[in-house]
Amino acid sequence: MLLRDKLSLVQIFRMTWKLDIAMIIFCTMAYYIDLYWLRDHISIPLTITAVLGTALAFFIGFNNNQAYDRWWEGRKIWGSLVNDSRTWARDLTAFCESDALEQAPTLARRMVFRHLAFVYALKAALRKDGDTYYQGYLNPDEVDTVAASKNPANAILQLQAVDLRTLRDLGAVDGFLFRELNTRLTAFTDQLGMCERIRNTVFPPSYLFFTRVFIWFYVMMTTFSLTENIGGWAVLFGWAVGFVFHVTHQNGLSIMDPFETNPMSLPLNSISRTIEINLLEMLGHSPLPSPVEPVGKLYIL
Amino acid sequence: MLLRDKLSLVQIFRMTWKLDIAMIIFCTMAYYIDLYWLRDHISIPLTITAVLGTALAFFIGFNNNQAYDRWWEGRKIWGSLVNDSRTWARDLTAFCESDALEQAPTLARRMVFRHLAFVYALKAALRKDGDTYYQGYLNPDEVDTVAASKNPANAILQLQAVDLRTLRDLGAVDGFLFRELNTRLTAFTDQLGMCERIRNTVFPPSYLFFTRVFIWFYVMMTTFSLTENIGGWAVLFGWAVGFVFHVTHQNGLSIMDPFETNPMSLPLNSISRTIEINLLEMLGHSPLPSPVEPVGKLYIL
Amino acid sequence: MLLRDKLSLVQIFRMTWKLDIAMIIFCTMAYYIDLYWLRDHISIPLTITAVLGTALAFFIGFNNNQAYDRWWEGRKIWGSLVNDSRTWARDLTAFCESDALEQAPTLARRMVFRHLAFVYALKAALRKDGDTYYQGYLNPDEVDTVAASKNPANAILQLQAVDLRTLRDLGAVDGFLFRELNTRLTAFTDQLGMCERIRNTVFPPSYLFFTRVFIWFYVMMTTFSLTENIGGWAVLFGWAVGFVFHVTHQNGLSIMDPFETNPMSLPLNSISRTIEINLLEMLGHSPLPSPVEPVGKLYIL
Amino acid sequence: MLLRDKLSLVQIFRMTWKLDIAMIIFCTMAYYIDLYWLRDHISIPLTITAVLGTALAFFIGFNNNQAYDRWWEGRKIWGSLVNDSRTWARDLTAFCESDALEQAPTLARRMVFRHLAFVYALKAALRKDGDTYYQGYLNPDEVDTVAASKNPANAILQLQAVDLRTLRDLGAVDGFLFRELNTRLTAFTDQLGMCERIRNTVFPPSYLFFTRVFIWFYVMMTTFSLTENIGGWAVLFGWAVGFVFHVTHQNGLSIMDPFETNPMSLPLNSISRTIEINLLEMLGHSPLPSPVEPVGKLYIL
Amino acid sequence: MLLRDKLSLVQIFRMTWKLDIAMIIFCTMAYYIDLYWLRDHISIPLTITAVLGTALAFFIGFNNNQAYDRWWEGRKIWGSLVNDSRTWARDLTAFCESDALEQAPTLARRMVFRHLAFVYALKAALRKDGDTYYQGYLNPDEVDTVAASKNPANAILQLQAVDLRTLRDLGAVDGFLFRELNTRLTAFTDQLGMCERIRNTVFPPSYLFFTRVFIWFYVMMTTFSLTENIGGWAVLFGWAVGFVFHVTHQNGLSIMDPFETNPMSLPLNSISRTIEINLLEMLGHSPLPSPVEPVGKLYIL
Repeated sequence: MLLRDKLSLVQIFRMTWKLDIAMIIFCTMAYYIDLYWLRDHISIPLTITAVLGTALAFFIGFNNNQAYDRWWEGRKIWGSLVNDSRTWARDLTAFCESDALEQAPTLARRMVFRHLAFVYALKAALRKDGDTYYQGYLNPDEVDTVAASKNPANAILQLQAVDLRTLRDLGAVDGFLFRELNTRLTAFTDQLGMCERIRNTVFPPSYLFFTRVFIWFYVMMTTFSLTENIGGWAVLFGWAVGFVFHVTHQNGLSIMDPFETNPMSLPLNSISRTIEINLLEMLGHSPLPSPVEPVGKLYIL
Repeated sequence: MLLRDKLSLVQIFRMTWKLDIAMIIFCTMAYYIDLYWLRDHISIPLTITAVLGTALAFFIGFNNNQAYDRWWEGRKIWGSLVNDSRTWARDLTAFCESDALEQAPTLARRMVFRHLAFVYALKAALRKDGDTYYQGYLNPDEVDTVAASKNPANAILQLQAVDLRTLRDLGAVDGFLFRELNTRLTAFTDQLGMCERIRNTVFPPSYLFFTRVFIWFYVMMTTFSLTENIGGWAVLFGWAVGFVFHVTHQNGLSIMDPFETNPMSLPLNSISRTIEINLLEMLGHSPLPSPVEPVGKLYIL
Repeated sequence: MLLRDKLSLVQIFRMTWKLDIAMIIFCTMAYYIDLYWLRDHISIPLTITAVLGTALAFFIGFNNNQAYDRWWEGRKIWGSLVNDSRTWARDLTAFCESDALEQAPTLARRMVFRHLAFVYALKAALRKDGDTYYQGYLNPDEVDTVAASKNPANAILQLQAVDLRTLRDLGAVDGFLFRELNTRLTAFTDQLGMCERIRNTVFPPSYLFFTRVFIWFYVMMTTFSLTENIGGWAVLFGWAVGFVFHVTHQNGLSIMDPFETNPMSLPLNSISRTIEINLLEMLGHSPLPSPVEPVGKLYIL
Repeated sequence: MLLRDKLSLVQIFRMTWKLDIAMIIFCTMAYYIDLYWLRDHISIPLTITAVLGTALAFFIGFNNNQAYDRWWEGRKIWGSLVNDSRTWARDLTAFCESDALEQAPTLARRMVFRHLAFVYALKAALRKDGDTYYQGYLNPDEVDTVAASKNPANAILQLQAVDLRTLRDLGAVDGFLFRELNTRLTAFTDQLGMCERIRNTVFPPSYLFFTRVFIWFYVMMTTFSLTENIGGWAVLFGWAVGFVFHVTHQNGLSIMDPFETNPMSLPLNSISRTIEINLLEMLGHSPLPSPVEPVGKLYIL
Repeated sequence: MLLRDKLSLVQIFRMTWKLDIAMIIFCTMAYYIDLYWLRDHISIPLTITAVLGTALAFFIGFNNNQAYDRWWEGRKIWGSLVNDSRTWARDLTAFCESDALEQAPTLARRMVFRHLAFVYALKAALRKDGDTYYQGYLNPDEVDTVAASKNPANAILQLQAVDLRTLRDLGAVDGFLFRELNTRLTAFTDQLGMCERIRNTVFPPSYLFFTRVFIWFYVMMTTFSLTENIGGWAVLFGWAVGFVFHVTHQNGLSIMDPFETNPMSLPLNSISRTIEINLLEMLGHSPLPSPVEPVGKLYIL
């Protein structure tokens, strides 16, 4: 997640230089094609080009809308995870600490710790970075089972369910509380699956591919049209117009896969840490870990 | 689901050649009509054509929006199916294995297997491909009942309910767990019905038909207008402009029925297999089936 | 629901002939007004007209969006009705057939039959066609009560509740199952009310009225502008441009009231029959009614 | 809620005459400014004006979209109120009439009557018309408490809760039914709060204000541009173009506050009466009140 | 929340003067660049500029849409908080006042007061203004625990859960009511987390940054184009056109972070006070605090 809403020229250049060079070469070629060949034959009416531009603005807008929806849905899912994590810890700590049963509070605390393992295992799976930090919140005998699973986060939920049943058998959780806690496990399963859905479903690639092709086509047409009006300056303005369309399209692309690790992605590290701090505090743990620091004061992962 | 966001010229050609030929013939005809007859009488102002183009961009955008919503809703339904399948298996395996009752764990396992039959029967029904793979997860005596039903997936849910009641009668499931499990059966019923709704409800055909007619009308008008400006080149540019509109419209159409078996459809095979792997692993089954391979590294069904 | 996405010229003509004649008369009048009077005074710039066209495309798009939302919401409500009907029948048949109580299974079956009465009574109310088919699924002594009610479908739900209470009093339904079944009754109440909301709430008529007025104004302006450029051909092109806008607007209107009985409406007959077939099959009834046939292979009600 | 989708010229005139006069004066002023001063200096290119028009169409479209969403959300809330009212009455009449307890059915009936008080008190609060019709459905000793409250509708819900507890203490309502009924009370609280949210939250006024300013600016620019082309006719066409934009903007404004009492508002009188008729019928009351009549056959409140 | 939908020229000037000056300087520079250098070389076709303007209208529209959604989602969350607060108080006061247990009603009342602490602590956290008003609704021994927490609002919910358990242990709350009350605690946790999500997630800054850059580019292009047509007047019209785009963009920005304390933000003070008045009244408290007054009759915080 970017933190600043101002970008220096250097940053813009760093983000777009490949595109800029490609466009300048492309516009220059279009310019010479028009200059030495095409203009002798035809003069393309600007209105045709203008309609293309308007239609393109639509199609880019459509893509950006869907990209933003994917990004914001991802954020909402992790927001729900924060909320349900707090509820999970509160339900376990406030309602299970039956004095009569020594085992119950210990088990409840372990289930809160294990939930942190769930959060970090989910993050590792989404980012595909092989992060094993989550194992620190598991019992040694659980680590192997979980790591061997095709879906570690789901395996952790299975362990939670087994412990929930033990709590129920001990009498520390009655039917009503059982439904509360199991509702939470269901919610975690849903959040896990929803994140996987967004990560694994590529946005229809032909939409993106053709939008990109049409932008290049529009840049070419614009350069042709401008060459006839303003000569070599057409390269400059062709680039400028192309810049507007390409960069807007790129903006959309950059948030389309919100669980990647680029500056525009969702700050999963930071959100996971928030959950960690909140839950450890609710357990009375001390000292608490410190929040995630921004990378170069620019963005936060 | 397409996997790559780059298409080669060959692929584009294979996707669009019929359309390309139709458009080139159409534009050539428009060119000659204008050349030998119409231009003697009138000269169509480009602005009129431009408004048509803008309006068309709107209507195509509207159709694509709705198409994407259908596709994404389909994906969400199958995502929920993944989530609820995991919850179903976890609830059954973790909470029903009562040591006192030998019958209960066996029954619970059978209900997990039968759920895989539900998933594959739903897939077969949506794709209308007569796939009977689902029968492998049913008891022999159930196969006939289910196959004879007008709606096999719904018949499987009926069998699940009967077994759920047996679990309840055995005392392996109390009222609270009964509601959890029945909520899941209700969710499967909803997902079944929602998939049927999308598959059986055609998008208002007059929207699509008239949008296509208007695109052809716009291509004709553009060719007329261009002929007066750039002569025979009008065929080339008429085709190019038509390509932008037609291909964008086609992109929408290609995801409007997300349960078909074309490269743009939802990867139901792959999602079903994911559920299968997850559930078999939760049952401790081994070896697990392998994930679905992409077709020609290009797309995944 | 239209079934085919191709319309013959004859069909288009049948759908639009009134409009076509009105437009041709209107454009001809505009042509003569411009020819014999207005052109001597002014020449309207095309750009002004173009902005009107763009704005109109917006407003039509807005109306169509809302129309589609109404239509699709209607379809979703009936989809939920299908799902909840199946759940209702499954819950009643699988969980209530207590062997000890002879009365309970009979009552449960009667409640499934009575639900079919609810579905058909709802359909009759939405279509206002006085269809009394629903009475066949009611006991003779219930028919009068229901028919005398201001809201037959709601009266049927009241009967269901009374029987549900009997089941509870008999001990065939415990508290947990009671809540499941009552949740379903609540869902039917909601679906009934949501259908009534869509049917009884007219889309703000001033939106539609002024959009239509503005389309005519735009057609007039276009004809004026074209007359100055292309003479009598203005009538033809004025009609063509008007056709694009008017037909798109009509497309929206045709699905705005999705419970009517025109070819674009929702196929309530067909959906009701699907519910009927599913529920009768779940009761082991035989033979089953056959699905609804399309009207002239063109559309399905 | 307007009932007719055709407006006579007289009605249009009555709705827009102030605006029409203001625009004609404004355009005339713009015309003379251009004629006697501005045209000697500059000639504004129409394309600049056209872009303004397109942008405006966007901003108006945005406002109308949000206005429609407010209106439709308001309608949905009242739709839910209808549904939950019916469920409330059904639950109370069908499940509470325990023969052993004479007090219970009387209490249940009183709670249905009191719900009608809730509906009418909510309507009075939303319309701020001081209507005290709701008091007729309260016991004499309750009227004062409710009227003295800062929020009468909420005070009524408090009374309902007290009676619900009495029913529970009497044993006429068990835990399961208690949750059903309390869920309904929670729903009424939500509907009350959601209506208040829409009524009390003004749409960001700067959006509306600047959109209006920009429309006037656009009308001025159009008149300037037209004066140079068509002289005095510019006033006519400036007004016509302004009419399209202003009226569309007004259409949005007119449904932005859906609980007012103008012809475009939601028909709260009619919906309240529908609830009243349904609930009284469910109680076996007779005769029933008659539905609300349209005002002048034109609109319904 | 602004209260008036009319702004005086002074207010507009106060809101936009920095921007106005920047634009006038910018346009003047563009004018001189064009006048003394660029116009000798090229004449930029207006159509190119027009397409940019149309595309910009799109991108601004997209940003405003998302901004409005954030604002309205924030409003909805606080609306739910109002509703759930009333339900919380009603459930506690109506259902817990068991005569046998003296402790229970006192505890229930304390939980209502503590909820007011939650509301004010949430507001203070969202506005980051260090407001400690919430401490007045806590017991002295709770103030320190809460203030020391990383997340005071969450710590208050933890206290509520502990008291809820005491109520349950006392027998004043049975399992059914426990689920009602805990559902409410879960809702408060969700509302807390949803507010944090909106406050902590910046809207993708590159969208906003580039939109602003493109507006300036468009203003420059417009001024260039106009200079060639209307000379020095280009500065005036360049500013006017830029004003439309910049102000619309600013309108979106001003509601993007709805929990700030500027005139366009959500009136959290006022909503919190509404909750306070409602809950104190439900407790029979008197006198009640008075509603929040608007600031300078212009806006309400």
